[in-house]
Amino acid sequence: MNPAPAAAAPIVATLDGALHPIESPLLRADDLGILRGDGVFDATLLVHGRPRDLSDHLHRLVVSGEISDIAVPEPPLWQRAVDAVLAAVAAGPAPDAEWVLRFIVTRGVTEAGPPTSYLLAVPLDARTIAKRNGLRVRLLQRGFVGAEVAALPWLLPGGKTLSYAINMAALREAHRLGDDEVLFVGGDGVLLEGPTCSALVTGESGGRPWIASPPMSGILDSITVRRLFRACRAAGWDADYRPIHPDELRSAEGAYVASSGRLLAPIDAVDGIARRVGPRTDELRALLEMP
Amino acid sequence: MNPAPAAAAPIVATLDGALHPIESPLLRADDLGILRGDGVFDATLLVHGRPRDLSDHLHRLVVSGEISDIAVPEPPLWQRAVDAVLAAVAAGPAPDAEWVLRFIVTRGVTEAGPPTSYLLAVPLDARTIAKRNGLRVRLLQRGFVGAEVAALPWLLPGGKTLSYAINMAALREAHRLGDDEVLFVGGDGVLLEGPTCSALVTGESGGRPWIASPPMSGILDSITVRRLFRACRAAGWDADYRPIHPDELRSAEGAYVASSGRLLAPIDAVDGIARRVGPRTDELRALLEMP
Repeated sequence: MNPAPAAAAPIVATLDGALHPIESPLLRADDLGILRGDGVFDATLLVHGRPRDLSDHLHRLVVSGEISDIAVPEPPLWQRAVDAVLAAVAAGPAPDAEWVLRFIVTRGVTEAGPPTSYLLAVPLDARTIAKRNGLRVRLLQRGFVGAEVAALPWLLPGGKTLSYAINMAALREAHRLGDDEVLFVGGDGVLLEGPTCSALVTGESGGRPWIASPPMSGILDSITVRRLFRACRAAGWDADYRPIHPDELRSAEGAYVASSGRLLAPIDAVDGIARRVGPRTDELRALLEMP
Repeated sequence: MNPAPAAAAPIVATLDGALHPIESPLLRADDLGILRGDGVFDATLLVHGRPRDLSDHLHRLVVSGEISDIAVPEPPLWQRAVDAVLAAVAAGPAPDAEWVLRFIVTRGVTEAGPPTSYLLAVPLDARTIAKRNGLRVRLLQRGFVGAEVAALPWLLPGGKTLSYAINMAALREAHRLGDDEVLFVGGDGVLLEGPTCSALVTGESGGRPWIASPPMSGILDSITVRRLFRACRAAGWDADYRPIHPDELRSAEGAYVASSGRLLAPIDAVDGIARRVGPRTDELRALLEMP
């Protein structure tokens, strides 16, 4: 679980199992993935040679494809690419580093396809690893109401598309302000999600711990949150999706950002105002690692 | 001004003036243009060997770059690519066809750049040409209020980014419904723009013709609308940006969609209900061609 040395270059594999040097171009200039951000992706963490929740991520990729009318290759069709990348990581300079596996499917070079599909493995960036023990969150307006967008399928609610320019711009805005991460707030004032992560708050009620995350109206169905909720419930916690007011990020016993790369990162500042790291952080991290 | 024969393949040039066969991949698998739709573009029409309003489009590309924090090459740096493409079109099988010139700049393979820049020329699709004389428009909710988004720079208002997945999904929705084009409506009920076009309505007041387009709050500054307004004013019309209610698309004397590729296309149906083609269409088209 050490950061990858700088020597570990990204690894690319296509679905036929072929590896492609990262310096060699892979995509045509007229691929709709580049011209229109017209495609979908999913990503998971590779730790000690094992991709986390691989099946869940590949199934979510298919769902993103359904939302976008793209015929995403079914999960078994990714196996040769996964095998090729795992072998290349194991034989490379950073076999014990954490890697992000990114499954990418564009619409292709014509509306009718076929889609362009590949797997990209990149060493997890040092910044993400460093911020796992506490990160500063900036709240930014997302410009829409989650429940409204959820009812408008052409706005691709819940799909993980390649059109993330706004998400990236929001992260740059947070960095400019000295913060690490963004959580978006809807036009109705409730918490949504981050550009590439989900939000969680925790507490205790009647002697019983609880954990909550925003409802999936217009936002992504987080696999990390799902996994955590499953383990929390098994451990006797209440775990629910419910509307969360941004103030709860300050007032709740614990507040977190969750994603496949960050795992569970405690929030230690909101809009520049410090908050304590939740006292159940270690317990939650252990729960997240339950099989 | 004939449609290009099927034999006319897309042409790609980089800023050094080199041409690249369209079948040869040009972009790395980890280019942020593909992973995140993180980049900007602009597009114009090439007619009889001359790109329309080239300088305006290259300047708007720079503005899109400023909105997105991408160091877009300044207009003169595109000259060698433009020259190479014009020469290739002239020497190819469809020199007299209309072509779309697309100027593309991604953030590159790292946050710090350098950007990936190229010019792509594609024969204008037959569908667009066929629909220039009348198109069916579907109104779709955009999920935000233009004026609100205009005040939130991390939502990239007014920037022409590569993150157009929602725009493309909206067009597919219109096609499914038997329509040709989309115009988006804001959460406040006013008309915004189309996925890749602008909206216009015309009429007459006190014996004087007028033309109007929605204000540029959270939407693109259309070069075609700008050009048309300039020519209309010179011809004694009133030409203004003002809030437009979607009902005006039905009730106004004329209603149009404008873009670099469509030029000025009259709307002949709104949400499946036929409307007449505006009586000043030929006059407006002539105005659009004024130098």
